[in-house]
Amino acid sequence: MTDEATVFVPGHITGFFTISEDDDPTKAGSQGAGLALSDGVTVTVRAADERAVYLDDTSIEVESVDRVLDALNADVLVDAESDLPLGAGFGVSGALALGAAIATNRVLDRGLSENELITIAHGAEVQAGTGLGDVVAQAKGGIPIRLEPGGPQHNMLDAVPSRARVEYLHYDELSTESVLDERGEQLNSAGEKALSLLVQEPTLSSFIYASRGFAREAELLTPRVATVIDDVSDAGGQASMAMLGETVFALGSGLSDAGYEPESCSTYPAGAVFQ
Amino acid sequence: MTDEATVFVPGHITGFFTISEDDDPTKAGSQGAGLALSDGVTVTVRAADERAVYLDDTSIEVESVDRVLDALNADVLVDAESDLPLGAGFGVSGALALGAAIATNRVLDRGLSENELITIAHGAEVQAGTGLGDVVAQAKGGIPIRLEPGGPQHNMLDAVPSRARVEYLHYDELSTESVLDERGEQLNSAGEKALSLLVQEPTLSSFIYASRGFAREAELLTPRVATVIDDVSDAGGQASMAMLGETVFALGSGLSDAGYEPESCSTYPAGAVFQ
Repeated sequence: MTDEATVFVPGHITGFFTISEDDDPTKAGSQGAGLALSDGVTVTVRAADERAVYLDDTSIEVESVDRVLDALNADVLVDAESDLPLGAGFGVSGALALGAAIATNRVLDRGLSENELITIAHGAEVQAGTGLGDVVAQAKGGIPIRLEPGGPQHNMLDAVPSRARVEYLHYDELSTESVLDERGEQLNSAGEKALSLLVQEPTLSSFIYASRGFAREAELLTPRVATVIDDVSDAGGQASMAMLGETVFALGSGLSDAGYEPESCSTYPAGAVFQ
Repeated sequence: MTDEATVFVPGHITGFFTISEDDDPTKAGSQGAGLALSDGVTVTVRAADERAVYLDDTSIEVESVDRVLDALNADVLVDAESDLPLGAGFGVSGALALGAAIATNRVLDRGLSENELITIAHGAEVQAGTGLGDVVAQAKGGIPIRLEPGGPQHNMLDAVPSRARVEYLHYDELSTESVLDERGEQLNSAGEKALSLLVQEPTLSSFIYASRGFAREAELLTPRVATVIDDVSDAGGQASMAMLGETVFALGSGLSDAGYEPESCSTYPAGAVFQ
């Protein structure tokens, strides 16, 4: 047993996705593709007598983290620092859940495997209604393609073999749960089309082209997101919308070239990493 | 198309393994577990009119690389630099094959996915008789457990959720092919036992304990390797033998503490990474 453990979990921008419901949360999830980011969440877990969760020094309640700690029968202190805003399409809740699972397993010597910990975090996110595919993508890193939904025992992952600088601009939150409720069918048809395009040519250009088509067809673009994406295109770049937040992301210097002042990072080649 | 692409592929020490033969090289392979290493092979591929392969500025023939380039219909220059010796149980031929596949795909715009490139490199290694499980482990990074053999379409991977400093000491080469021919059945029985131990408790201690048991039961220890492992144990550390080379690896400072002067690196959390 160690007193504390710290894990970095990459952020994750989803470009497009489908929704697969299932009573078994390890089978439920989504297909789709996204970018694991070098901006992410650093999660430190310390042995403690009472459970507490902090994000950037503020006490918070995150249902997926609570579910992870329940599954691990763990009363620990979870102290997280994030480069990214919560609820903005960067997979912060998924990162908290996965980071808490991996670090708690270490601190309390739970003896679980990586897949078991990913399964717990994935199931917690699904049951909390805060994410369907972030956790498995964040555990893989890179530019993951989720060919089949679910946790590690059921899904099938591939990836775009590439690496890129990424810029992003965040305006506002969008509620994952309410969008999923309203747009289910439309999303799935647009998501399947996007996945089929990317599988035919698994490159970064295809990824962002397919993502833009998905956002348009699923009618998820807000007016200001649509304007920014058009501005990036006019400046010769490639951008789309992060699912689900009022957030635009671009490859390379797409947003800067269009005159915006974005945050920047890059794709992160690894999954969750002990610090 | 770009003129050149460079990929770092981690080295890989196999602690224990089984052999699964199959006429289909994407199904053949091995179960087992190992350590992906921060010491590895940096592979640069350049567009060229004729095929040539260099390792540390020396022209070499590596059958698995040739098979990869055949599969990609590619005449390119492969220029590799390695931190690790070839034929010593560090997965250098697997790293060359995987790095050549990923970098060539980029340089020649072949438009293949990560799984497709891993499949090509895995199959090339199997057919060349130079490796059964290194490529899929090197593509994953970390401390991979190969629960089921084969390439990405057929295998099942898990991992020990941990990270470690690694020391190693290399004496001599061992021929993978001749050992596999002589020891098939003995290896499989010892390998399955080791895997079952590790799956019960997927920790670093279990990994090295299971690896040591495997090396002993499969009668693979050479006298000097056995002596070094005993010396590390006597000094309170944990060591085993890299499969397949006359090479000892230890966790933490195990070899230094026993008075040896080893090379050192750490586990590498990512798979193959574009530089």
